[in-house]
Amino acid sequence: MLFHVTMDVDIPRDLDPDVRADTIAREKAYSQDLQRQGKWPHIWRVVGKYSNVSVFDVESTDELHEILWNLPLFPYMTVQVTPLCPHPSSIR
Amino acid sequence: MLFHVTMDVDIPRDLDPDVRADTIAREKAYSQDLQRQGKWPHIWRVVGKYSNVSVFDVESTDELHEILWNLPLFPYMTVQVTPLCPHPSSIR
Amino acid sequence: MLFHVTMDVDIPRDLDPDVRADTIAREKAYSQDLQRQGKWPHIWRVVGKYSNVSVFDVESTDELHEILWNLPLFPYMTVQVTPLCPHPSSIR
Amino acid sequence: MLFHVTMDVDIPRDLDPDVRADTIAREKAYSQDLQRQGKWPHIWRVVGKYSNVSVFDVESTDELHEILWNLPLFPYMTVQVTPLCPHPSSIR
Amino acid sequence: MLFHVTMDVDIPRDLDPDVRADTIAREKAYSQDLQRQGKWPHIWRVVGKYSNVSVFDVESTDELHEILWNLPLFPYMTVQVTPLCPHPSSIR
Amino acid sequence: MLFHVTMDVDIPRDLDPDVRADTIAREKAYSQDLQRQGKWPHIWRVVGKYSNVSVFDVESTDELHEILWNLPLFPYMTVQVTPLCPHPSSIR
Amino acid sequence: MLFHVTMDVDIPRDLDPDVRADTIAREKAYSQDLQRQGKWPHIWRVVGKYSNVSVFDVESTDELHEILWNLPLFPYMTVQVTPLCPHPSSIR
Amino acid sequence: MLFHVTMDVDIPRDLDPDVRADTIAREKAYSQDLQRQGKWPHIWRVVGKYSNVSVFDVESTDELHEILWNLPLFPYMTVQVTPLCPHPSSIR
Amino acid sequence: MLFHVTMDVDIPRDLDPDVRADTIAREKAYSQDLQRQGKWPHIWRVVGKYSNVSVFDVESTDELHEILWNLPLFPYMTVQVTPLCPHPSSIR
Amino acid sequence: MLFHVTMDVDIPRDLDPDVRADTIAREKAYSQDLQRQGKWPHIWRVVGKYSNVSVFDVESTDELHEILWNLPLFPYMTVQVTPLCPHPSSIR
Repeated sequence: MLFHVTMDVDIPRDLDPDVRADTIAREKAYSQDLQRQGKWPHIWRVVGKYSNVSVFDVESTDELHEILWNLPLFPYMTVQVTPLCPHPSSIR
Repeated sequence: MLFHVTMDVDIPRDLDPDVRADTIAREKAYSQDLQRQGKWPHIWRVVGKYSNVSVFDVESTDELHEILWNLPLFPYMTVQVTPLCPHPSSIR
Repeated sequence: MLFHVTMDVDIPRDLDPDVRADTIAREKAYSQDLQRQGKWPHIWRVVGKYSNVSVFDVESTDELHEILWNLPLFPYMTVQVTPLCPHPSSIR
Repeated sequence: MLFHVTMDVDIPRDLDPDVRADTIAREKAYSQDLQRQGKWPHIWRVVGKYSNVSVFDVESTDELHEILWNLPLFPYMTVQVTPLCPHPSSIR
Repeated sequence: MLFHVTMDVDIPRDLDPDVRADTIAREKAYSQDLQRQGKWPHIWRVVGKYSNVSVFDVESTDELHEILWNLPLFPYMTVQVTPLCPHPSSIR
Repeated sequence: MLFHVTMDVDIPRDLDPDVRADTIAREKAYSQDLQRQGKWPHIWRVVGKYSNVSVFDVESTDELHEILWNLPLFPYMTVQVTPLCPHPSSIR
Repeated sequence: MLFHVTMDVDIPRDLDPDVRADTIAREKAYSQDLQRQGKWPHIWRVVGKYSNVSVFDVESTDELHEILWNLPLFPYMTVQVTPLCPHPSSIR
Repeated sequence: MLFHVTMDVDIPRDLDPDVRADTIAREKAYSQDLQRQGKWPHIWRVVGKYSNVSVFDVESTDELHEILWNLPLFPYMTVQVTPLCPHPSSIR
Repeated sequence: MLFHVTMDVDIPRDLDPDVRADTIAREKAYSQDLQRQGKWPHIWRVVGKYSNVSVFDVESTDELHEILWNLPLFPYMTVQVTPLCPHPSSIR
Repeated sequence: MLFHVTMDVDIPRDLDPDVRADTIAREKAYSQDLQRQGKWPHIWRVVGKYSNVSVFDVESTDELHEILWNLPLFPYMTVQVTPLCPHPSSIR
């Protein structure tokens, strides 16, 4: 089941630089683990913004919330979720 | 080069039913042709709306405009284009 | 799996009165059938508006789109879908 | 009498961690007490957000304001209230 | 129980002039009847707009919806309802 | 001459508690004095918000600005003013 | 007493050309009469729009509403009114 | 050449009171000097807000930017500029 | 003197096809004439929209309004004007 | 390939003045270098704002993101990117 998710990141300027670097590193590892599992099939950077557009493939809305809530950068993100379904014109 | 495109469709109620059916059929063929060429790699329906979220893979902004402007449903669409680029956390 | 759905209805003034009455009657039957199946557990009227707030309980985003797309009043509605999940404070 | 209420929570980063934990614990107890009384019949988490969608069943607008104003997290919430009434299609 | 209600009126240009005049006359009678009953204690015109700001005093959200839904001009109105309660600084 | 005024209050978290309490007390006295003079005939709390909806009855826009600018909580308020006039359906 | 008023004009395409020309002529005469009386001291065109920004000098909100409501183009206008008062830095 | 300018002022609470008083005094002198030169023919206070509506009469967009950028309160202002031109109904 | 102008075009579906074609042809000639005079130095199409982003170089706001008001497509456009001035980092 | 970019700058008040001056100087040098390379053909100041409107001429969306992400003022900017293409009426 697919969900379109946008994440806009706004890390506070006064966050300790080590905490910042560590959080970003953990975010990357966390994302790549989910990508390898096939749960986060697409992630793109939005040009000119500290934002991404992603597509998640999950079993349920619960699973999606669990994934998003535990993003290391979640406290600094604005997240917007849109449910998707197959398009009748899609050839896939 | 990737672009995120949303299309919200609003076909006028008084459009001739045959014109309507024909336009929708041509839209589907047009889209599927571009999907087969690899220029329109993703198209999803937004749940509860006559809208889609798509990703296009084109050589230039000109090519993208040419594709969108010639969509059979273009006169009845609101289109929003956002440029994308690879995300540093992507494993692709 | 739960989804919060708002529906704002705007039936065109010039719709044939018989078509209008028939569409509203079919909408009611369609809704009540889904309520009886447990797929549409909540529907409330918003005070002062031709709108409702509903909760759907479905197996997938596909099923939800299928239900909404086939609402007899769908062509005259603006629909907004928000995915829900259990709240940690809920006693249910 | 039913009211639809959305609560978006934004706890300041610099709130003392003990105060934070205590406030969240008190919020949970406060909510569950009202749920048991039947005054807060529904609370759902919005996927991907520190927000909930709730339905309250109260005697008056005064009682609703009293409940909301005394939420332990109220100072950190944006609250939106929409009055509801029975829907003519509801089978309840 | 008090509710703040704004009504923005937009009567279609092509409405039959007799229907228009009759609807406006019925709206006035309907409003004045409710004012006399004490259910619609305040109605003010917004300067420069075909809009009013009103306060209703009703027993329930159901009663309020019933009143608003049956306004003769309701089909041509955008209505916004905000629940009110006594202010702690009020001397009333 | 009547004006509709909404006031949304947002007192900074780090305001000294004594200053806060004193400001709120002075706001209440200031408001009640104007209510007694008939210049602030209505003040209601908006349910679920630290906001009020008020009606002022003043001689001029100058007088209204003077009153609002000197509200003890003015520095922490967002104020919105809408001019009113008698409604042709009003029985008052 | 001064009020800032913006008027955005949108005359329907299908208005009879003679009615249109006559309405615009009456609007001009109406406006110039009020300008001569000193009640409409400023009117400017907004560049690139069928809109004006005006300042009115009236005795009351009633008088202002009466003036605006009777503008020949009022049925085709969106009007926004903002109350003004003297600025402490003004040398006038 | 006329431009309509709105300025919304938001001076930070923690600005040193002497700096604040000095900045406001310099703003007043700066504004009055430009008023005397005829470059800032109108300035009005918006009722209930720390905002003004102004009209500037300048030789060029450069000159206008130079004036606005050097306002002592510029760092604490949100400024909106709208180009004006003579209105065909104006009697001036 | 430079102005940034966006034009969003929305030609009514029921416009006579000959009138439509003629208006578009006249718009093109009108625009090219102004481009040749140096008054309309830049015009770009916005990808995926019937809109353009333009820069005008004019003597005054009057001249700019005159140019825009007389665009053959003006009755079907939404126009937004933003005044520009040289940027201190520009090497031109 | 052309992109329209707006940049709104908001440098925090408490940024060290030397850091501030250095960042602004590096921004200028960075911009001028790209202008000389032909990658940033247009940059204009928006009158009355700490904002610019720019046009970039790049090989790809990647290159554009790389340029924007590395702007010395990027952490203090809100950036909005709109893809452009040649306009059919352009004489260039």
